[in-house]
Parts: sequence; structure tokens; C-alpha cells
Amino acid sequence: MEGVAAGRFVAKDPDWRARVEASFARQAFMRTLGARIVSLAPGACVLGMDHRDDLTQQHGYLHAGVTTTLADTAAGYAAYSLMPAGSSVLTVEFKTNLAAPAAGERFEARARVLKPGRTLSVVEAEVAAFRDGAWTPVAFMMATMMCLAGTSDGPAGA
Amino acid sequence: MEGVAAGRFVAKDPDWRARVEASFARQAFMRTLGARIVSLAPGACVLGMDHRDDLTQQHGYLHAGVTTTLADTAAGYAAYSLMPAGSSVLTVEFKTNLAAPAAGERFEARARVLKPGRTLSVVEAEVAAFRDGAWTPVAFMMATMMCLAGTSDGPAGA
Amino acid sequence: MEGVAAGRFVAKDPDWRARVEASFARQAFMRTLGARIVSLAPGACVLGMDHRDDLTQQHGYLHAGVTTTLADTAAGYAAYSLMPAGSSVLTVEFKTNLAAPAAGERFEARARVLKPGRTLSVVEAEVAAFRDGAWTPVAFMMATMMCLAGTSDGPAGA
Amino acid sequence: MEGVAAGRFVAKDPDWRARVEASFARQAFMRTLGARIVSLAPGACVLGMDHRDDLTQQHGYLHAGVTTTLADTAAGYAAYSLMPAGSSVLTVEFKTNLAAPAAGERFEARARVLKPGRTLSVVEAEVAAFRDGAWTPVAFMMATMMCLAGTSDGPAGA
Repeated sequence: MEGVAAGRFVAKDPDWRARVEASFARQAFMRTLGARIVSLAPGACVLGMDHRDDLTQQHGYLHAGVTTTLADTAAGYAAYSLMPAGSSVLTVEFKTNLAAPAAGERFEARARVLKPGRTLSVVEAEVAAFRDGAWTPVAFMMATMMCLAGTSDGPAGA
Repeated sequence: MEGVAAGRFVAKDPDWRARVEASFARQAFMRTLGARIVSLAPGACVLGMDHRDDLTQQHGYLHAGVTTTLADTAAGYAAYSLMPAGSSVLTVEFKTNLAAPAAGERFEARARVLKPGRTLSVVEAEVAAFRDGAWTPVAFMMATMMCLAGTSDGPAGA
Repeated sequence: MEGVAAGRFVAKDPDWRARVEASFARQAFMRTLGARIVSLAPGACVLGMDHRDDLTQQHGYLHAGVTTTLADTAAGYAAYSLMPAGSSVLTVEFKTNLAAPAAGERFEARARVLKPGRTLSVVEAEVAAFRDGAWTPVAFMMATMMCLAGTSDGPAGA
Repeated sequence: MEGVAAGRFVAKDPDWRARVEASFARQAFMRTLGARIVSLAPGACVLGMDHRDDLTQQHGYLHAGVTTTLADTAAGYAAYSLMPAGSSVLTVEFKTNLAAPAAGERFEARARVLKPGRTLSVVEAEVAAFRDGAWTPVAFMMATMMCLAGTSDGPAGA
């Protein structure tokens, strides 16, 4: 994936960016991880976060569950950016390949839609680690995201 | 998966249980999530954790990244229990299907080895949510774990 | 997966069996491979086929694409058995772990639904090889199947 | 995947191309499907085949097992091109997303290595269908390939 190519897809909802940002802001786990939106484009999303010792596995690297969380969330919002207003996004499934230890000062998950669909979208994401002044890919994801039309993206029961 | 069938596999390392517990204890992210070992057997591992609002996604359910983290860790230790002394375990890849919203008071990830191998092992895991007095499956994982023989399972560089 | 547990699910369509058999009979590739239905139950399907030298990879074993085809088809019909009359089944995605060389005289793919859904179903399958008088698992699949309601399961455009 | 970027990787084995071609020629199932090598580069492989009615599923499209076979084989040889002389390649696992019906006159699977490794390599592949004068992506794969050093890539027992 060579960066996040804006312009490849066109958003149907003119307010897609505000909708994605509002949904991201409702994800308490993103705050817990210290994750932030780095960039958004129709069909693409980059999220970033810093290394923290309380998020590590037994070797002291970022836990695979954390890199996967970041990739899943980036993939979800890449797909959500192309969904219509008044819809909600749901992860159907994802597959993650861990290509290298997640060692670094900070991390980015870069997701882009491969194939958007009315109901299901296929999205790929890459997680890169920044260390020694350079970015190294540490994980790759392929995911299926589902559009729930006519549902609130807010808290259940709200 | 009908529970965790002990006795299907035999551990090579008589100290497998202490080795798994020590490795789990080194995972800072498990403490951050409040995860604990529920049960261990050769080729099987059950981990548990409680719902917490700071671990949720936009609808207020447990984030898919958290259920995946629990499943990945359970799968890793199910495989690690069968590995020899002086080895380390590494997640090669996993695939997660999210079958229902992760709504519940507490959660368990139940993993068991499908096929152990000298280098690679195939493991399946199920995440169940406890709500209204019953357990409901919310996610399914199939994972590949790798045995790194002759490596420390402790902090890198230690 | 311990065999195909009939009775765990109830088919909505009383004619589910005839519907599955008719769809299977329309799959030309199943005839090309010499695949046959071994058994069917609501939410479960077992397909069988024999080893043939024209279906092998470079080491002389059954090609991973063939075992995957058998597993995908078994998984699809396990899900389709629970779908309503007048619907069609579509594979969304699958993941296959190849656990051992597909060496044997004959092969079975045994699929069962883990979680049925109105639109999406999660299905697992195992491919086993029969050799030296015993069955050995050679591949594991986890798949997502989609129900297309109100569509013909026959040839496109028919 | 923007085409198959040659030059991104350097093959260790100067005879990589002959080694890949010889292994492909030993795959009887490739002949059965009428598949051929379209192009090879270090870390990349494109395979092609034509639509045939005996390779279809119930709607008359190419069976998902066939597109997956093509993608798996392309992914395997993309990885194998970077492996050393005297080694053999093995598929550990793959995941396929079927993005559109495999309708077309002919098909190509285009694979490229995302992360080569001494033992394990991560590879992505895309299957495209040619119809009405244009190529359309119909499937996406992410796969793990394993290098078996010091083993023959020929028939077992030979």
C-alpha cells in the first residue's frame, strides 16, 4: 500500500468526515490506547498512537491485540467514510498477519478500501512502526466491514 | 468447541503450567485489561475478563480489538503449553469472525490446539459473553502460532 | 469438530435437503473433481472425493486449492441448509490453514455452522484424508457465508 | 496492488526463474485448469487461465475454489522466487475475500510478496476477471508461505 491515495473513491455523504470523527470520538477504547486520527480521505483512514509499556506483551513489544485494534478501527473508518448518512459500521471479520515485532516509538495503521459495497466492503490495512527514524511494516490486515443502513452509530439503546 | 478437553494432548515440558503462567504474568497489556487465567490444560487455555466502559467501541460494546486480544492470548498459551522448555511463542497470524455484539458482564476466550507442530501450530478459539445468566459466543478465531526454540520468553534484550 | 452433530439446528425450509442437493448438482466443478455428498443435516454438510493424480501440486499431494474447494463447498451448503426457500448462498470469505500434506486415497470435507444469521453465517470446516486405514485432518477452514434472499440459485440470467 | 513491481526485491538464487517454472510445470492441477505463467519477477508472480464451463459453481461463474487455487499458486511462486536454491515452498494458510462474481472470459492472479522472511513470508494476491474489454478485481488473498530449506521440490519420495 503506497500511502493513502485520496481521490480514488468519492464519498456519498458530504458530511462523511464529521460522521467518522464523531464515531471515532465515541470509542472509549481509542482514548484508553491514546489513539488519534492522523488523516482521513474517502475510503482511507490513518490512525496513530504511541508506544506505552502498559500495552505490551511478554517481550516488551506492543501487544498484537493492540496493533490489531488500531488496524481494525482504521479499516472500519475507511469503509465507513464511503457509507451513507444514517448508517452504522460493523466489523464482520478480519485477518491479521504479524510480520515483525511491534517495536517502535509510535505506530500508524493505514487502511484503504479495496472494494466498497452496498452491504459489505473489503478493506486492507498495514500497521507500521516508527523506530530509528524510519517506518517499518509490522502487521497486515484484510477485513470485511458491513454497513447497517438506518441504524444509529451511537450507544446501543440510545 | 465443547469446552476445553484436557487429556487430548500431553505436554512435553513437565513445567508447562508454571512456564505459561510466568509468561502471562509478563504481559503488561493483560493487566491493563484486567484479564486473568481461568483454566489451563495441555493444548488448552481459558482466559477471562470483565466488561469495562473504557474498553468499548462506539455502541458501548467491548471493542472487537479487546475480544481479539483475549482470543489471541488464549490461543498463544494453548499452543505454548505444548512447546518445549526454553522456547518462546509468537503469533504468526489469526483470523477473527465477530458473530454477535460483545455485550455482557464478563467474557471468556477458550482456546484449544487443533494441530500442534514442531514449528507451527493451528489453534482455534471462541470468545463468549456472559449476560442474563448465560454464555453466548460472540467471536471465533483461527490462528497460527510459531515456536521459537532456544529463545527467551522474557523481555527483548534481557 | 467431533463429527457432524445433527439436531443442533432446525431447518426453516422443509425442502432444505432437496434444495441443497439440486444446487450441488448444478456445480460443474464438483463433477470435474468427482466430489459427492456424503451426508447432510441442518447446519452440516460432508463432501467426499478420491485422490486423482491430475489434481495434485508439485509434490504429488492433492492441491491446496482442491482441499479448499471441497471445504468451501461443504461450508456453503452447511449454511445454505439453514437458509429460507427462494434464497441463494454466496461465499463472502474463507480462511484455510493447511495442517498436513493432503496425502491419502480419499478426502472428506466436514462443515458445520458455528453461528447462523439472517444475512451472514459463520461456518467451520475440516478436511480429512483417509490413508493407512485412518482419517487424518489436513486442513481447517473458517468461512463467512451470505444469504441472498429472493434470488435464484440457478444459472445467472436464467 | 498497482501491478507487479519488479525490482522491489532481489532474488538470492540466480536460477530462481527456472526453479519456479520447473515447480509450476510439476503441478498437475495447473495443467488440469489450463493455467499458465503470465509473468514472473523476484517477489511477484502473475498466472492466467481462461473461463471453462467445467470449472463453474451453481450460477455459472468460475468456482471460488478455482480463483483461490490460482491465487494460492501465484502467491506461492511469488514467495518461492525469493527463496534459496535447494528449498521447497509450502502454503501455511491463506484468506480469500470474494469481492465480485468471477464472471469473465479469462482470469489473472497477481501476487506480490509483502514481507519476505527466512522461514515465513507474507504475500498478497488479487484475482481479476477480464470481461467487456476491461479487468475487474474479483478476489483478494492474504497468505503465509513457508520455506522448507534443504528439501526437494519434486515428488514426495523421489
